[in-house]
Amino acid sequence: MAVHGGACAKFDPSIGEDCSYACGTGTVESALTDLERIEKFNCGFGSHLTIDQEVECEASFMSSKNMSFGAVGAISNVFHPSKVARHLASNNWWKQRDLLHPLILVGRGAEKYAVRNDFPTCNPEELISNQAKDSYEKYLHRMLHPYDTHDTVGAISINVNNMEAESATSSGGIVLKHSGRLGHSCVYGSGTWSERRQYEEPGDLYSERTISIVSTGHGEHLVKADFCRGIATRVLDDEEGILYSDIIREFLRDKMESRARFGGIAMIADKFNERMSLEFLVFHNTRYLPAAVRGRDNKIQVYESKFDPDSCTDDKFVIESFRL
Amino acid sequence: MAVHGGACAKFDPSIGEDCSYACGTGTVESALTDLERIEKFNCGFGSHLTIDQEVECEASFMSSKNMSFGAVGAISNVFHPSKVARHLASNNWWKQRDLLHPLILVGRGAEKYAVRNDFPTCNPEELISNQAKDSYEKYLHRMLHPYDTHDTVGAISINVNNMEAESATSSGGIVLKHSGRLGHSCVYGSGTWSERRQYEEPGDLYSERTISIVSTGHGEHLVKADFCRGIATRVLDDEEGILYSDIIREFLRDKMESRARFGGIAMIADKFNERMSLEFLVFHNTRYLPAAVRGRDNKIQVYESKFDPDSCTDDKFVIESFRL
Repeated sequence: MAVHGGACAKFDPSIGEDCSYACGTGTVESALTDLERIEKFNCGFGSHLTIDQEVECEASFMSSKNMSFGAVGAISNVFHPSKVARHLASNNWWKQRDLLHPLILVGRGAEKYAVRNDFPTCNPEELISNQAKDSYEKYLHRMLHPYDTHDTVGAISINVNNMEAESATSSGGIVLKHSGRLGHSCVYGSGTWSERRQYEEPGDLYSERTISIVSTGHGEHLVKADFCRGIATRVLDDEEGILYSDIIREFLRDKMESRARFGGIAMIADKFNERMSLEFLVFHNTRYLPAAVRGRDNKIQVYESKFDPDSCTDDKFVIESFRL
Repeated sequence: MAVHGGACAKFDPSIGEDCSYACGTGTVESALTDLERIEKFNCGFGSHLTIDQEVECEASFMSSKNMSFGAVGAISNVFHPSKVARHLASNNWWKQRDLLHPLILVGRGAEKYAVRNDFPTCNPEELISNQAKDSYEKYLHRMLHPYDTHDTVGAISINVNNMEAESATSSGGIVLKHSGRLGHSCVYGSGTWSERRQYEEPGDLYSERTISIVSTGHGEHLVKADFCRGIATRVLDDEEGILYSDIIREFLRDKMESRARFGGIAMIADKFNERMSLEFLVFHNTRYLPAAVRGRDNKIQVYESKFDPDSCTDDKFVIESFRL
């Protein structure tokens, strides 16, 4: 289980501490619920303001079990959009009626869904923090580069008992975004991916591999690259034990426009033919990506990955990888 | 240039005539504008009602030129959502400010965008047709199978002078959908794809291939399969001249869950090493897919592709393909 606090422009040691706390709550859902309460994260209360000075949140949830997925976008009436996304992903209402299960609900419809399913609601203004107001003022005056701010948070987990994976992201979007703008959290495959794949081996044996991955950063570029699904597919397709860092580097080279801004990812996966050998990895090109991880021993470790693009000559990103 | 009237459950010869008329208007934008005015199509005026008896439209537009893309979803205040999607795709406002260009706007934000950019707006009730009200009543009483209705319309074109492609879809979504539900039109890669790809050849020569494709049908399944981008990528990656129908069959086998409901596609592409040799293709597993095509000679032909799943033994879909 791991939690990241979003691609950041500046180092702030208190963010790692908050991630650590959220990581201890036990599930990706409870971890995000935790971050959605804290002003300094760009999700739930504290989300960046749109250009119209409102808050519109988005969140998604995916489980490797049945590949269930739910996302809500442009939702302004709940403190915890990630709970609504998770509820949508696992709601049996449509299945019972042989109707198509919606993947994404947005705007007024998402808000109605929250009300109908008894999520505590709030006035949109209650999601606006003083810090978000200050950011809005600051960036409105330097319109050209509003992107050195805080981004989408995420949580990933692999249950070592049944090897099922879960992942979730929650975001207030980019500061000064047009109202109604959907980011990568809302797009299937872009913001979050959890998959458990079984491979048939010679002699009627089955091998399997599981991955859980979330992305943070400049949503439109992540959407165009089909980011999380794209990386997950390459990882799960690989049978030669290529290093995850090499897979990701190659993916960025193939799929991202060279001038595309990016952000970061957090990922947990097990190696092919090395079941029970989990690896946690963060990869980013922002100055800072704070994360916390809880391994098999239940100990939580904080990883504060830093990067100085100015002092970098070759690859314009940093990768950190740890055995769990 | 081609226009299709959506995957349909029943044959209706008047739909082919309307497609033919729309096909004569000259561009994918004007063709969709045309269909969005006509009650019998599931887009703009006449869109299926949500379970709350409202109309929420979605539309997307993509051009191979700079791979520009725009989509609007859960929008209820304009007669022509496809025009708003096209406007968003080509709007330079963000580029001029070095801001991230949004791909998708939904709900209130999409409606504000339409107002700010001077699209004629309407009251949401003005989009509700009598036919849509009747469908709502009918399907509410047989909740279990509301999917034998009319689906997303689309238009595709390849300009034979510069070989740039354009594609657009417009939809009122599935009848009885939850309000706020986004379908495949809103998801990058799923509802529409236009791409022109250049390949380096030996001896400093360049070869190129162009494709324009739109999908119609059960949105969530199309989203999960990354439908239009997935097929386009396989077509553009192929260097062996595999039949398009075989590429599509293989794609369906690999990427669609076996019990997934599907719909149909319309596609125009040129063959590798056969520039200027355009092929038009429809592929569906619904009973009917009406389409009209305008070829090089400017003559418009109507193709009304029919399919009887009950009399079919092998592949559960039909394909029709024509040289343009």
